Amino acid sequence: MNPKPLLDALAPDANGLVPAIAQQFDTGEVLMMAWMSRESIEATISTGEAHYWSRSRGKLWRKGETSGQTQRVVDLRIDCDGDTLLLQVDQKGVACHTGRRNCFYRRLGGAGLESFAPVQTDPKQLYQSS
Amino acid sequence: MNPKPLLDALAPDANGLVPAIAQQFDTGEVLMMAWMSRESIEATISTGEAHYWSRSRGKLWRKGETSGQTQRVVDLRIDCDGDTLLLQVDQKGVACHTGRRNCFYRRLGGAGLESFAPVQTDPKQLYQSS
Repeated sequence: MNPKPLLDALAPDANGLVPAIAQQFDTGEVLMMAWMSRESIEATISTGEAHYWSRSRGKLWRKGETSGQTQRVVDLRIDCDGDTLLLQVDQKGVACHTGRRNCFYRRLGGAGLESFAPVQTDPKQLYQSS
Repeated sequence: MNPKPLLDALAPDANGLVPAIAQQFDTGEVLMMAWMSRESIEATISTGEAHYWSRSRGKLWRKGETSGQTQRVVDLRIDCDGDTLLLQVDQKGVACHTGRRNCFYRRLGGAGLESFAPVQTDPKQLYQSS
């Protein structure tokens, strides 16, 4: 698929990035938010696997490249202002580096922040050195 | 509810803002993404209505203050890194200023960007001067 129409509509920030929301395509679960560059959008479209831009490492990053927890992209959407993307994906395993299915496992409750989602996979297993 | 536990966990950007994803609580539909400041988080928690920070206008903004398309907040979640919020909301009417239910109405297809969601409410009706 030609990425140009999407890139033409893109309104990135001063760092050339846009927030990208990853949502499990069939359940609607919001899995995570990460950042995409033009390069990561092109890599995502050409491979069908979600690629992001790691701001901490300053490099292109294929989701799951270390952990194996990849995201197959089912649909790629852009918002009205062109400054946010919504990826509908099929998440393999867990999206969060804590081993939880999604990153939004803490909510504000009467007793403070409540962690309500279980760790499904031990992070040591996800990031063991090979 | 006391906002302090959430504010303590918050890792805002250099402008004091975090991206906030608004999701319809019962259907899972991702409605929009906007930005929140500490002030907008406090206003959201104290009123139960979503407040954002308008970067273009440089001011606190209650969602729907002009259009009437308000968001009642059902749940407020924070991600693993503290730098993104997920609001589960009950959206009144339409979330998008174009009059569509959500802002992600364009997808990349073989023929370019495809607009696939109908305008539900004429924006002229949403933003008519009173």
